[in-house]
Amino acid sequence: MLDNAMQYSHQLLTEIVQPGDVVIDATMGNGHDTLFLSELVQSTGRVFSFDVQKAALEQTRALFEHQHQTLINVELIHASHDQIDHYVTEPITGAIFNLGYLPGGDKSIITHPTSTISAVQQSLNQLKIGGRIILVCYYGHPGGQEELQQLLSFVAELDQHHYSCLRYEFINQINNPPILLCIERKK
Amino acid sequence: MLDNAMQYSHQLLTEIVQPGDVVIDATMGNGHDTLFLSELVQSTGRVFSFDVQKAALEQTRALFEHQHQTLINVELIHASHDQIDHYVTEPITGAIFNLGYLPGGDKSIITHPTSTISAVQQSLNQLKIGGRIILVCYYGHPGGQEELQQLLSFVAELDQHHYSCLRYEFINQINNPPILLCIERKK
Repeated sequence: MLDNAMQYSHQLLTEIVQPGDVVIDATMGNGHDTLFLSELVQSTGRVFSFDVQKAALEQTRALFEHQHQTLINVELIHASHDQIDHYVTEPITGAIFNLGYLPGGDKSIITHPTSTISAVQQSLNQLKIGGRIILVCYYGHPGGQEELQQLLSFVAELDQHHYSCLRYEFINQINNPPILLCIERKK
Repeated sequence: MLDNAMQYSHQLLTEIVQPGDVVIDATMGNGHDTLFLSELVQSTGRVFSFDVQKAALEQTRALFEHQHQTLINVELIHASHDQIDHYVTEPITGAIFNLGYLPGGDKSIITHPTSTISAVQQSLNQLKIGGRIILVCYYGHPGGQEELQQLLSFVAELDQHHYSCLRYEFINQINNPPILLCIERKK
């Protein structure tokens, strides 16, 4: 079976993230990506994980406890991802964004194009050569199309000499499955 | 590095094609995909390979000879891919189409939307569950955009209960790199 956007996002990160690396989960949500990244970078690495909702930090702590995983290499940060440059000053190998709303959460709390693009730009500023920023874009909610279009414009204008920008999308499904974008730094 | 469309097309076929399988190269061209498929299905399988240009058959024979590979499991067919159902009557695991013109060849000889869509439909009629049809679409030539748009419409309308249709595309490159479409049969 073809990977869905979530599965493919993990595949793209698994290919490049090594133990000891520094990575970002820009949208902590229920903590699943934070846990996944924590396992990839292992105890010598570091995961910076952001969310504006305090509940996300609590859910993530509970998830790690339930999985008997330590948070020793994880920084749970109660702030918007457009504050990345206040918290992350070292080079990163990867970052993941789940854009839209938190599945199963409050659909009125959504990411917004201005802060999202600022956060992506801040992540790019720290991205190592060969590193990848993954954007999993949910857009079936009010405001979702606008965020998606602004993000697509931003990504499509990145200099092809420095970045490869991939779009991975299922095009025959009626329920707006997420679109995956991957920005890889070439040099 | 992220796979380009050609590399990813081979990855998607490698994941599913087994020795003994029957597969189609709908656009033989210089024979590289025919050789690749011949190695995947091995001596117990079968590759049906189509081209309207006689030179393609000659180039493919020369390629196999140069690589010291036998054509024992390959059927080189001098016909348009919209004749697939005249030649292939058994279930297939995969098919690959390189649409547009033959790189390095005569750019006035291009694939056309009506015969391409007919050929894709004929391939779908033979496709096993779990099988994949790959379309690598070059569209930077006169008529290329029209073929691409008609093909995208056709693929986007395939029933999501029976098919998953993936679009894989680099969106920040100015020189129209090929777009990959993959149709996977679910049931």
